[in-house]
Amino acid sequence: MVKVGIVGGTGYTGVELLRLLAGHPEVEVTVITSRAEAGRPVSDIYPNLRGHFDIPFTEPDLGQLKSCDLVFFATPNGTAMKMVPGLLDGDCKVIDLAADFRIKDLAVWEKWYGMTHACPDLVAESVYGLPEVNRQAIKQARLVANPGCYPTAATLGFLPLVEAGKVNLNGLIADCKSGVSGAGRGSSVGMLMGEVGESFKAYGVPGHRHLPEIQQNLSIAAGQDVDVTFVAHLLPMIRGIHATLYATIDGEIDLQALYEQRYANEPFVDVLPLGSHPETRSVRGVNHCRIAMHRPQDGNTLVVLSVIDNLVKGAAGQAIQNMNIMLGMDETLGLQSVALLP
Amino acid sequence: MVKVGIVGGTGYTGVELLRLLAGHPEVEVTVITSRAEAGRPVSDIYPNLRGHFDIPFTEPDLGQLKSCDLVFFATPNGTAMKMVPGLLDGDCKVIDLAADFRIKDLAVWEKWYGMTHACPDLVAESVYGLPEVNRQAIKQARLVANPGCYPTAATLGFLPLVEAGKVNLNGLIADCKSGVSGAGRGSSVGMLMGEVGESFKAYGVPGHRHLPEIQQNLSIAAGQDVDVTFVAHLLPMIRGIHATLYATIDGEIDLQALYEQRYANEPFVDVLPLGSHPETRSVRGVNHCRIAMHRPQDGNTLVVLSVIDNLVKGAAGQAIQNMNIMLGMDETLGLQSVALLP
Amino acid sequence: MVKVGIVGGTGYTGVELLRLLAGHPEVEVTVITSRAEAGRPVSDIYPNLRGHFDIPFTEPDLGQLKSCDLVFFATPNGTAMKMVPGLLDGDCKVIDLAADFRIKDLAVWEKWYGMTHACPDLVAESVYGLPEVNRQAIKQARLVANPGCYPTAATLGFLPLVEAGKVNLNGLIADCKSGVSGAGRGSSVGMLMGEVGESFKAYGVPGHRHLPEIQQNLSIAAGQDVDVTFVAHLLPMIRGIHATLYATIDGEIDLQALYEQRYANEPFVDVLPLGSHPETRSVRGVNHCRIAMHRPQDGNTLVVLSVIDNLVKGAAGQAIQNMNIMLGMDETLGLQSVALLP
Amino acid sequence: MVKVGIVGGTGYTGVELLRLLAGHPEVEVTVITSRAEAGRPVSDIYPNLRGHFDIPFTEPDLGQLKSCDLVFFATPNGTAMKMVPGLLDGDCKVIDLAADFRIKDLAVWEKWYGMTHACPDLVAESVYGLPEVNRQAIKQARLVANPGCYPTAATLGFLPLVEAGKVNLNGLIADCKSGVSGAGRGSSVGMLMGEVGESFKAYGVPGHRHLPEIQQNLSIAAGQDVDVTFVAHLLPMIRGIHATLYATIDGEIDLQALYEQRYANEPFVDVLPLGSHPETRSVRGVNHCRIAMHRPQDGNTLVVLSVIDNLVKGAAGQAIQNMNIMLGMDETLGLQSVALLP
Repeated sequence: MVKVGIVGGTGYTGVELLRLLAGHPEVEVTVITSRAEAGRPVSDIYPNLRGHFDIPFTEPDLGQLKSCDLVFFATPNGTAMKMVPGLLDGDCKVIDLAADFRIKDLAVWEKWYGMTHACPDLVAESVYGLPEVNRQAIKQARLVANPGCYPTAATLGFLPLVEAGKVNLNGLIADCKSGVSGAGRGSSVGMLMGEVGESFKAYGVPGHRHLPEIQQNLSIAAGQDVDVTFVAHLLPMIRGIHATLYATIDGEIDLQALYEQRYANEPFVDVLPLGSHPETRSVRGVNHCRIAMHRPQDGNTLVVLSVIDNLVKGAAGQAIQNMNIMLGMDETLGLQSVALLP
Repeated sequence: MVKVGIVGGTGYTGVELLRLLAGHPEVEVTVITSRAEAGRPVSDIYPNLRGHFDIPFTEPDLGQLKSCDLVFFATPNGTAMKMVPGLLDGDCKVIDLAADFRIKDLAVWEKWYGMTHACPDLVAESVYGLPEVNRQAIKQARLVANPGCYPTAATLGFLPLVEAGKVNLNGLIADCKSGVSGAGRGSSVGMLMGEVGESFKAYGVPGHRHLPEIQQNLSIAAGQDVDVTFVAHLLPMIRGIHATLYATIDGEIDLQALYEQRYANEPFVDVLPLGSHPETRSVRGVNHCRIAMHRPQDGNTLVVLSVIDNLVKGAAGQAIQNMNIMLGMDETLGLQSVALLP
Repeated sequence: MVKVGIVGGTGYTGVELLRLLAGHPEVEVTVITSRAEAGRPVSDIYPNLRGHFDIPFTEPDLGQLKSCDLVFFATPNGTAMKMVPGLLDGDCKVIDLAADFRIKDLAVWEKWYGMTHACPDLVAESVYGLPEVNRQAIKQARLVANPGCYPTAATLGFLPLVEAGKVNLNGLIADCKSGVSGAGRGSSVGMLMGEVGESFKAYGVPGHRHLPEIQQNLSIAAGQDVDVTFVAHLLPMIRGIHATLYATIDGEIDLQALYEQRYANEPFVDVLPLGSHPETRSVRGVNHCRIAMHRPQDGNTLVVLSVIDNLVKGAAGQAIQNMNIMLGMDETLGLQSVALLP
Repeated sequence: MVKVGIVGGTGYTGVELLRLLAGHPEVEVTVITSRAEAGRPVSDIYPNLRGHFDIPFTEPDLGQLKSCDLVFFATPNGTAMKMVPGLLDGDCKVIDLAADFRIKDLAVWEKWYGMTHACPDLVAESVYGLPEVNRQAIKQARLVANPGCYPTAATLGFLPLVEAGKVNLNGLIADCKSGVSGAGRGSSVGMLMGEVGESFKAYGVPGHRHLPEIQQNLSIAAGQDVDVTFVAHLLPMIRGIHATLYATIDGEIDLQALYEQRYANEPFVDVLPLGSHPETRSVRGVNHCRIAMHRPQDGNTLVVLSVIDNLVKGAAGQAIQNMNIMLGMDETLGLQSVALLP
């Protein structure tokens, strides 16, 4: 059994890691830390874990964490970068589910996140944990930066088009919609059910932190700078991201073949028949990304629809997929259940 | 008091007409028809109307309808075109809330709606009931085609840009999201709460009937053909449409001034401060369209956010606004309440 | 025009007062206070008020408030009792929407609310603002204690039975369910949409502050002590209370006649036909209480179903009804709109 | 591997059986029938099954079904009773998830279900599949009647009290609330999201088919007739039942000890600490029933809160639990996952 630790386990990403790891046949969670809740059983906060995890939250302790084979950071941005250097001293591997190691360009990171980075060298070393792009590098990595939720949905949706050089790279549009769990479990008036229930709005249109991450991913895929307009919206539901992606065609494409070939060997990307409309509920609780393509009215604007569960493929599930790869296990272990529908 | 009739009053548009007309100081609803529910009090089906409307549904009767000053058709597509010619014989005016008279190009209409039109001459005569565009014509009209819900939100959002000739007319994108009441009150598996609750999807991407209507509106505004990509999505909530509109800038614009001037005298279009994010709940139950503009990262892609209540400005409210104009009353009568929030 | 002030206008009760007062033909809101938001326009926080109220929040100022004909307190428990004595010096009347004056037995109040009361004499003087019980006293009152939401639904549902002495007074059960807006607009993890959406639970079963209020109301109605078990539940929706009330019959009753006669002259209590199932949406946004009675299997257990909108008849609407009575206006002014359905 | 068939697989119980059986290590689903959808892949209707089940729906065929070790009927009431006699000829065992075999008193069954029973002898032979009561009999059974959803939640909640003879058996009250998936996937206006979203109501108060089932269960447990008042309510959410149960105490009880002892060896009944408030989301997607007890104000009325997922412990999960018992497998196989929260 592999020993795993979780730093910062009280948020939605933390409980989702625990939910999924409970069904992982090769993993034992030995530590879960929370300064605020130290001493309290995890099932006190998350009643779904009763009978599955009886360990309490503890104060983060570097020594104890180092005894793990792998440590997940499910902490706010800016926390992992302070602790990771200490951890990597030993044999422990690390996956950061926050944004500390996602952006390679430090100046860009520091501008969008409003902090000075604590360990720039590790940013250079870390691997961006999108297995569909970086599987080999993830296999070798000590430190993986788990992708953001919107960037996962948008990148997987655009990737075949951008890699194939078949679309205009200067006018990509990612109109993305997320359930409220993407905002985490922090108390805030703006995320009360009385405020966000039965309503819909865009947010962060002037600038959202996932924009530079999407741009980095697509620019690497294209081998040149890519210009994306990204608009995030808040859905009156709990889980799920739906990315509606627009691109202007540049040359002829067999859309369906392009996507099916690109993702032929991917266990967690499911290309639907041309003209389908994937529903977020079809991936509720599971690690799949479902994608469908359209070319409405045979025009020049392509529409790609990409859905994930923001807490699974957009966070904890992808982190476990990365863990499986890093530790040489079957990539799908612990991630084989069926989406909860209805 | 003005005498008003409603043909086909059992759907959501019908009950919304009744809800709003109950508060209209100059209107008396004298007839409300439904073949299926003839004889049953309207409050049986719509308990919110108890104490407000005690009249029963009746079989549609041309003579009785002709005695009204104005008749609303809240019927399925294809019904009004059969009855309207008979009605217009007299002094009665008509507002059709369905699509029978919305599209001027008959071939286009017949292709998208899959029917032969019953009265092409009335299509030519009818006025498209978007007061922000056609107020003077509506004033003179005998027959008004009340706009569709998505076309209302999208057209009002794009209108100032398109009229001003400031954007590329070949790559407009309307990414629209609607609450479930837009699908009406017909029984269907696909609209069960068990199917659409807690989930989100696009629909009709290959072709939605509101596409030609949006294109017609914007082409008229532009004075030339406009190419729009329109994607509709279904929100897990009851009321509200949010249109996220994308356009590529062509020349310099003072966005805020452009919109504020265009809508300066419009009682039901509210231009928010630049950079705002309108919420659909801010128009729940009312006839307003709230609009905000963005130019993310100072790039060339403009983002316009436009919200309406699909049953009010997107249907019954706009119909009453049109009625007020047609009958020479204050345009805002019966439409002055405050949105229900939270 | 009557001049009205609101103390503490940033909560859901505050915005609901403003929404309803906007449509009141005889009222002008001249002051709305909030320490936290002083200087900010009310429509900044509540976008539905744009164009209806342009006044900003101000610091509470006794002099300014005294110039009003009537002041509403939409403040947390314990605030009104400190300011009301100063206000009542002048000609100003007061309605407290919080609990400061609801419980006549000071010891009971102080136990449940955990505070020492600041003005016990005003508790004695104040009138409990349930018009269906205390209309004459409200007419004379300087200070009205607006009832709680659950107590309104439960009291109106039980009242005819208890007054008529037809049920066992020792085993009444009130199983009540409320939408989340009942918890107010304060930030809290427990009311995040991620926590309360798509889930249902009871809360406060060991003891809820509305229990002594319900018991007081029913004991007064019965002329003797009444024993009630009250269980509150949280619904995954925004507005509405549904009280399911159980009582054991004691003697024969014509249930329907009893209720219809009791409420024959009540503008805001609507007794449905025997065997009906009122829906909370049928009173969404309006001041009505809809009630239906059942005697399942002709047994001894009666079931009464009572629905209100917790923010209207359960708070702001009932407060306006009380204001109308106190100021000698038509009791239904500003409260005549139709519920928003769907 | 055990071979399993499902008759009538297009409803919510059918897809839930498939979802859970996909994770069962000892089961292979070899047949799934649907007259209406014969020939169509199951994943066409249920996109969450893509990649898990590639078999198509087929016409029901007795020979093919007989080749299974066990057949589940997820059909409307009245279907299983016609096919089961033929199936039981062979070695095949049967679990009926509908109501055909739940009620032992045929006259009662025929009154509530409005049909003549097709095989009264099998009603006598069949075992009511509540493992917490009938585990030994289920082990021997050829035919198991899987309990209804409300009866499961209510019976498990009342059981320890009723068996111990500690409460008044003539005034039990079961105030139950269910998510909309309990109504199935049949098309109906009444279950449209536009009708049931953001609203709450009771239904079937004059008489609900689960009443005689609850009464039968509790009467057997008590060894005498028990009188229950049962009120069902519809929650604006998809999954979950919350039963709020009321009983008048008769003698002294150590509530917590009583329940903990009764359920000490039950893998799927979780007794929470006294005074807890179980949430339906804590059992979303899993086979657990979570129960908590209260004695408010130390009075004579006990309150028991019992939650299940109506599609799991209330249907498909309990059916699989029964299958495990009938086929001699570990009772928890395929039922060990963690509830999806948030």
